[in-house]
Amino acid sequence: MYIGVDYYPEQWPRERWDTDLKLMKELGINVVRIAEFGWSVMEPEEGAYDFSLIDDAIAAIESYGFDVVLGTPTATPPAWLIEKYPDVLPADDHGNVIGFGARRHYTVNSEVYQQLTKQIVEEMAKRYGSHPAVIGWQVDNEYGHEKSDRSYSETDRKAFQSWLQEKYESLDELNERWGTVFWSQTYTNWSQIPVPKKVYQEHNPSLLLDFDRFCAEAYNRYNRLQVETLRKYIADRQFITHNFVYSGLSQDQKEMAKDLDFISFDNYPVWGGLADPISPAAIARQHDLCRGTKNGKGYWVMEELSGAQGWSQIGYLPRPGHLKLWTYQAISRGAEAIVYFRWRAARYGTEQFCHGILDHDGKPRRKYNEVKDVITSLEGFADQWIESEIPADVGFYHDPENDWAWQIQPQSDQFNYIGEFLRFYEPAHSLNAQGNIIRDDEDLSRYKVVVVPVYFLTKKTFNDRLKDYVANGGTVIFSYRTGVKDEDNIVTDQTLPGDLAGLAGIQVHEYESLRGGKSGRVKGVAGAVEGLSSSASVWCDYIEPETAEVLATYEDSWFQDRAAVTKNKYGEGTVYYVGAGIESPMLQKLYASIFEETNLTYTETAENVELVRRESEEASYLSVLNHDVEEGHEVALPEGEWTDAASGEKHTGVLEIPRLGSLVLEKRKQH
Amino acid sequence: MYIGVDYYPEQWPRERWDTDLKLMKELGINVVRIAEFGWSVMEPEEGAYDFSLIDDAIAAIESYGFDVVLGTPTATPPAWLIEKYPDVLPADDHGNVIGFGARRHYTVNSEVYQQLTKQIVEEMAKRYGSHPAVIGWQVDNEYGHEKSDRSYSETDRKAFQSWLQEKYESLDELNERWGTVFWSQTYTNWSQIPVPKKVYQEHNPSLLLDFDRFCAEAYNRYNRLQVETLRKYIADRQFITHNFVYSGLSQDQKEMAKDLDFISFDNYPVWGGLADPISPAAIARQHDLCRGTKNGKGYWVMEELSGAQGWSQIGYLPRPGHLKLWTYQAISRGAEAIVYFRWRAARYGTEQFCHGILDHDGKPRRKYNEVKDVITSLEGFADQWIESEIPADVGFYHDPENDWAWQIQPQSDQFNYIGEFLRFYEPAHSLNAQGNIIRDDEDLSRYKVVVVPVYFLTKKTFNDRLKDYVANGGTVIFSYRTGVKDEDNIVTDQTLPGDLAGLAGIQVHEYESLRGGKSGRVKGVAGAVEGLSSSASVWCDYIEPETAEVLATYEDSWFQDRAAVTKNKYGEGTVYYVGAGIESPMLQKLYASIFEETNLTYTETAENVELVRRESEEASYLSVLNHDVEEGHEVALPEGEWTDAASGEKHTGVLEIPRLGSLVLEKRKQH
Amino acid sequence: MYIGVDYYPEQWPRERWDTDLKLMKELGINVVRIAEFGWSVMEPEEGAYDFSLIDDAIAAIESYGFDVVLGTPTATPPAWLIEKYPDVLPADDHGNVIGFGARRHYTVNSEVYQQLTKQIVEEMAKRYGSHPAVIGWQVDNEYGHEKSDRSYSETDRKAFQSWLQEKYESLDELNERWGTVFWSQTYTNWSQIPVPKKVYQEHNPSLLLDFDRFCAEAYNRYNRLQVETLRKYIADRQFITHNFVYSGLSQDQKEMAKDLDFISFDNYPVWGGLADPISPAAIARQHDLCRGTKNGKGYWVMEELSGAQGWSQIGYLPRPGHLKLWTYQAISRGAEAIVYFRWRAARYGTEQFCHGILDHDGKPRRKYNEVKDVITSLEGFADQWIESEIPADVGFYHDPENDWAWQIQPQSDQFNYIGEFLRFYEPAHSLNAQGNIIRDDEDLSRYKVVVVPVYFLTKKTFNDRLKDYVANGGTVIFSYRTGVKDEDNIVTDQTLPGDLAGLAGIQVHEYESLRGGKSGRVKGVAGAVEGLSSSASVWCDYIEPETAEVLATYEDSWFQDRAAVTKNKYGEGTVYYVGAGIESPMLQKLYASIFEETNLTYTETAENVELVRRESEEASYLSVLNHDVEEGHEVALPEGEWTDAASGEKHTGVLEIPRLGSLVLEKRKQH
Repeated sequence: MYIGVDYYPEQWPRERWDTDLKLMKELGINVVRIAEFGWSVMEPEEGAYDFSLIDDAIAAIESYGFDVVLGTPTATPPAWLIEKYPDVLPADDHGNVIGFGARRHYTVNSEVYQQLTKQIVEEMAKRYGSHPAVIGWQVDNEYGHEKSDRSYSETDRKAFQSWLQEKYESLDELNERWGTVFWSQTYTNWSQIPVPKKVYQEHNPSLLLDFDRFCAEAYNRYNRLQVETLRKYIADRQFITHNFVYSGLSQDQKEMAKDLDFISFDNYPVWGGLADPISPAAIARQHDLCRGTKNGKGYWVMEELSGAQGWSQIGYLPRPGHLKLWTYQAISRGAEAIVYFRWRAARYGTEQFCHGILDHDGKPRRKYNEVKDVITSLEGFADQWIESEIPADVGFYHDPENDWAWQIQPQSDQFNYIGEFLRFYEPAHSLNAQGNIIRDDEDLSRYKVVVVPVYFLTKKTFNDRLKDYVANGGTVIFSYRTGVKDEDNIVTDQTLPGDLAGLAGIQVHEYESLRGGKSGRVKGVAGAVEGLSSSASVWCDYIEPETAEVLATYEDSWFQDRAAVTKNKYGEGTVYYVGAGIESPMLQKLYASIFEETNLTYTETAENVELVRRESEEASYLSVLNHDVEEGHEVALPEGEWTDAASGEKHTGVLEIPRLGSLVLEKRKQH
Repeated sequence: MYIGVDYYPEQWPRERWDTDLKLMKELGINVVRIAEFGWSVMEPEEGAYDFSLIDDAIAAIESYGFDVVLGTPTATPPAWLIEKYPDVLPADDHGNVIGFGARRHYTVNSEVYQQLTKQIVEEMAKRYGSHPAVIGWQVDNEYGHEKSDRSYSETDRKAFQSWLQEKYESLDELNERWGTVFWSQTYTNWSQIPVPKKVYQEHNPSLLLDFDRFCAEAYNRYNRLQVETLRKYIADRQFITHNFVYSGLSQDQKEMAKDLDFISFDNYPVWGGLADPISPAAIARQHDLCRGTKNGKGYWVMEELSGAQGWSQIGYLPRPGHLKLWTYQAISRGAEAIVYFRWRAARYGTEQFCHGILDHDGKPRRKYNEVKDVITSLEGFADQWIESEIPADVGFYHDPENDWAWQIQPQSDQFNYIGEFLRFYEPAHSLNAQGNIIRDDEDLSRYKVVVVPVYFLTKKTFNDRLKDYVANGGTVIFSYRTGVKDEDNIVTDQTLPGDLAGLAGIQVHEYESLRGGKSGRVKGVAGAVEGLSSSASVWCDYIEPETAEVLATYEDSWFQDRAAVTKNKYGEGTVYYVGAGIESPMLQKLYASIFEETNLTYTETAENVELVRRESEEASYLSVLNHDVEEGHEVALPEGEWTDAASGEKHTGVLEIPRLGSLVLEKRKQH
Repeated sequence: MYIGVDYYPEQWPRERWDTDLKLMKELGINVVRIAEFGWSVMEPEEGAYDFSLIDDAIAAIESYGFDVVLGTPTATPPAWLIEKYPDVLPADDHGNVIGFGARRHYTVNSEVYQQLTKQIVEEMAKRYGSHPAVIGWQVDNEYGHEKSDRSYSETDRKAFQSWLQEKYESLDELNERWGTVFWSQTYTNWSQIPVPKKVYQEHNPSLLLDFDRFCAEAYNRYNRLQVETLRKYIADRQFITHNFVYSGLSQDQKEMAKDLDFISFDNYPVWGGLADPISPAAIARQHDLCRGTKNGKGYWVMEELSGAQGWSQIGYLPRPGHLKLWTYQAISRGAEAIVYFRWRAARYGTEQFCHGILDHDGKPRRKYNEVKDVITSLEGFADQWIESEIPADVGFYHDPENDWAWQIQPQSDQFNYIGEFLRFYEPAHSLNAQGNIIRDDEDLSRYKVVVVPVYFLTKKTFNDRLKDYVANGGTVIFSYRTGVKDEDNIVTDQTLPGDLAGLAGIQVHEYESLRGGKSGRVKGVAGAVEGLSSSASVWCDYIEPETAEVLATYEDSWFQDRAAVTKNKYGEGTVYYVGAGIESPMLQKLYASIFEETNLTYTETAENVELVRRESEEASYLSVLNHDVEEGHEVALPEGEWTDAASGEKHTGVLEIPRLGSLVLEKRKQH
């Protein structure tokens, strides 16, 4: 298994390199990522390449027996480039140019920048494409991050117009599908179409959604340019990857991943400005997304947090144990390699407070020792472990286009796509029921339950797939706002939940957006939730059951006769519809009963204790991860004797897991 | 009486038109507004007119016996227009151009746009000016809405300079009246004068006030251009109106109304982003404003909310009963016609979540039935009712120029002109004392009491009118910050309340702005408020009575000797001065006592129950409107037997009005 | 002693001048400042000077026996100037031009503006440089205020590049010291370097710090231009000053002060938008800064608040007593002259609600009487008092470059340099221990204790000075985040607190930024703080003592073994290190014990009671200042009989000081 560090040899005196590499050797790593921001080091002026520093760095790293991942430096166009080609710069939604001085200051739609990218990538590929120490490439860095996903310059506008022309072929088609007859927005010339810069009110939602698609595809094309340029020159054994961000950007990671050998991810459970880490389920969501991005293929964590992070604002200080916990969680959920960010905190530049394994003084201390402990602990079993399968009985639908559609029309100030996805993902995570995050292209029959939260923007093909799946015995959980829109961001003319009404066995005639501070109440009237009560926030669908059974109703004085949660038999299968933003306890009860009914494996644990099961032909693995910062907990182990894969200690029955404790238990299979 | 819907035939397949019109027929409507955003439908490219869709739509509507109101489409200049004439676009206060993509993207000061407006309006007028089904015209749509009231482009700057030149004739005069000697702002050339774009601090308040006046007048001129163009071609029987917004824009509705046959209003008691409807008094204020805008003339509600509203954010869902309640309230207070917005929710475009009588699926349900109930209920009596008079004993002074002056210098972060107007309007509304909202041009002698809240920017002629009115026996209620400024936004050099000090019989030597979280306390020491106590927010005038009697004093440890509320005899009349932002209960007590003294009709009801009395030669009418969403209430009826005008049911004594109930009682007069 | 008013003769009718001057005479003033915004009065068009109004105003003022301070009017370039030379205008950090319409609308880097400045200053200097009534000059007004400290235009960019070229001589040097290898920011041409306009993320912190230095130096150069122009023409007896603002601007007052005869300050303990005055310690900080700016030299308060202040938002109304209290506090702490702002509230212009000694009506009332009382009270003793020394045993380190470095990287959303400085200044102020605010250029040996708060950006020379000082017996109090950066804003590569670790006898291996709402707890375990407990906000350094003694530790469950407060013996001296943002009570206990140990004079008083001791050869002075708005307090006087310097009343033992009371006690020395 690859475990390594992100290193910036150009940022440290050469005299220090050897000290660093010795310390890395003692740490036990085997791979180093370099060069992803090093354009001006490699091409200090246009066309004048100087690879001496990178050559020497690779040689030094190789001399310690480590492999190298090389980054292409295109996230940081140098000063000379911007001076000579200022049109490369992007623009914000007021049309103001984003200047030189940080990073990601280019628009992917600039043909000049595409040409300049090709040149530097080609030069690097030629030089290192056969280098024995170089095992692979990271293309650029965190596409779309820091608001660089959407650019509004004249260059972007022209590219958007071309993209639309290619998509719609005729303006009649575009006008029809966007509904431009509304507010006299009919276009009679492609050149009239704007990028969605500031207007007095709000743009056409169909234009906005297409703009997000265009932005995502423009990045895909740009990525493909780099990948194709590399492939021409590099050895087959060298991989190509990119380190993704999953925070609602105008990016389609799954589409882009098709051009990559595997995907990578930058794992920061806490970062600048956050007072506390995000929740265990929120971290798990990201790993499940990573695993799903290339349909179950393992991924690299190319940047794994190793200290408090931040630019001008620093976040929470990870406590002793957090680094191991988050590393184990990452591997448990599908990471095949871990590269810690960063080896040592930078002494200069914007990332001075991105703390690393070493702090600014370069002395190994707590964090170094914790990483060493992680690496040592993994030695005996990691390779087999990462080869094992991750059983998955639940499919969670998660779609960037829905995310964009919700960003365009959040409808309530409380709505946030990731937050509402988590509302319907977290109960399964809490019950340690394992699943995959999926798109509309998957075979659903492999899942016992499919959860489809806030499925606002629908796809006909996926609707049909869901119908088949349920008809054949599958179980689906829908939430409020299901079935509202078609792919053009147009509202259905069928009664809600539109094309899915029959499947859910309900009609929604009345609904309500709940703003901050407002909430309704829902009470369980049948099934597992009977007698339970929950507040309801964000949204209420006041449901009329058709064929569905009512599980919960509203306590609203006007709509108390309407259903809030329903269950419908459809064909051989079952469909649940949760019409309001109800709270975790009620949802957990509902999920547990559904898991019982579908004979799906789940385990109740103390809050913040996460279990992950993996299976190979030789062994079963059980990760026990206690995210609780203050308290240890007891975990009831599955039947049999389990061995701590790192220490060899045996456990049966109840395991005591200390606060922030993490371990992997193993049970060999008898053959 | 006209009751109708806002319909967008261009947004629906022609095959649907007939279904829609049948449903409208069954609903009972008699008028349809169309075309106000249909520029690109009627003029798909410059100079090429195509009225076929509008022709057909009118024909279809006419075939059902409905009348038509036609909108001119100038709120939505089409894409071809903006591409060809980009200087038509407005600019924000940073000077950034507001682009194409929503609506209202033009500056009224563009001569090119004026010319293009004239052409499309002329074409429409020629075509439909004699059409038998067309009963009238709505010019443009919601002038100034969505921040389009103030534009800061170079075009606007030149127009502002011309306007100033016309107003002041000489720069000496302007420099003198603006006090430009302050901070060396003396202008030596008209071309030096800026529009108030962003500066390091704040602009000259006299310039700012004139800029607001200029913006309002520019719209008036633009409106006149449309009106005059129409009048050249249309039949005398066709009316011209415009649908106003009353939310503190740089608009002078009363002045503009002079060019209109009657005014219209878009009535949204709740809209996108609001968690709850605005208060009953706040809705009533808008209707009283409408009625006052053309001196008591009835008005149309051209858009009456019929469902939850919003663009990307949706607001509160109106409960069953709200549509009738708000319709009855509108008619009670002066609306002569109601047009519901919109017939059906749009499937595309920015207004997807402006819900209508029908939802996206086009099926009649609750809202349809409620509107039908409204229309049916009105059949028997509406025509006589809307002909009856609305007695008014109170005059409430409300002035856009004061609103602008307060926006320029709010003085406290708690100050908001509409909010403070409501502080002094609401006690009368709660007591069901009826009044008119007036400007300075009215004959005050018809009122028993005149309320003049936050009369900061004064007019000499109105001051004199107030003095005459009181001298002859009238009663005036002033609030804090009375008499501070002259019409040039210059502070008086007389001791406060300036020109009105003698009338109020007080002097104000000390005053204090109270910011959020700060409040003082006031205690009643005489008259009706004796023994009462109230917090005081926003502002405290620490008053020295001269001839006035002290009704309340401050509890402040430093200013406890100063008066907070006073009463002064002046001539035959009386003047009250409320020096602080005290709360409703104390103000209500004060108002009730004043109403007793002036022999003014008022009725105490439960909170949120609103009564409106109207009188004709034949009958008395009493609207009973319960805005309470949760509780029914008892209402003590005035003497005699009252008949429910819709049901014919008889009521005497106490009436039970259910939550959100609304009805009109009638008592025939004996002749 | 000079006591006067800020007067704007150009803003009032000439007929009023005499009334004003008579009232001033009765008030007892002896100096008037005029003309600082009067450019368009003196040069109504380019090159056409008209000094008649200023001539007449000076003559009128002189006729009453008052002296005159003349302002140069360069804070307000007139309309004709901006029309002709629009490139004079500054730009904000989006690159948007800041327009004409308020004040300070110029960039000091404009060579055109420098030339225009020179001309008007030269003309004024020639005309009034020998005028007998003119005693001195105020150059411009509040440099850098209202965000005018940083401008981002192309003019500024070129000036910044030149400044950098001069500072670094070679790009290699700049690239090295800024660490531009980070993110490929290496510059190969001076013209590539940006001013820090908006980017996707954050600029290089070394560039940002140099930009602040550049801005400050640009103002210094601009100020020098004015001073040198004046000096060519004016009499030696005329002084030159400037009225400073101390609110974290990119300004280096101490450096600029070298070119001035003395500095001035505008003293507003409360201003527009503040609900309450700033704390007594916060006001005191400003006066101590003033006194320190020219190394103890007395200064003028050129604008002393005389009423509620504000532009469009008004602040707190100063209570009766506040004017005297704040005046006495100012003089106690080093002011030699007081000029009240402003004589009378303006009737027009942006400053309509900057209330003065007179309100808009021009009638003398409470504030006039209070000022009169101040002036009368000072008559008998002020001249001797202001000549006396202010004993100072504590040095407080306060550095604009640290302020800028913290603004660039606040690290916690709770961090504010002035706020954190006050955290470590206030305990001494509360204990009435007197000190000076110092920079790194001072001889520390004169202080018993040196307090060095949040010393993030260090200077090697000052570090050495501190080491010598402690080695020789001095006592230093450091806070968290000491020793992090060098002067290039680069993080040290030594273990924290870096170069000062040995001095403090500690190492900091772990630290944490605490965001809003988060806090830790610290408990005293030894010394004066033993048994005390305090919350800790903003920051926690988890300290490893080396040679230091532990005074307090954390109660954190993970870091409870780490020290929070330490004390180290070093040479003959002692060093305290306070590692967290602990609260005032614990800090006060700590300070009191340190003052005991160092034999430093301090006096405990009731909260909000401030004492200031001054000494001359003839007498001791003790100012007693009660900032408590609601309560009077008892003050235990130092030994002996004290005489109220104003009233002659004698006091021994305990003095009762009423709320907002202020007086100066005197004790003659026996010779």
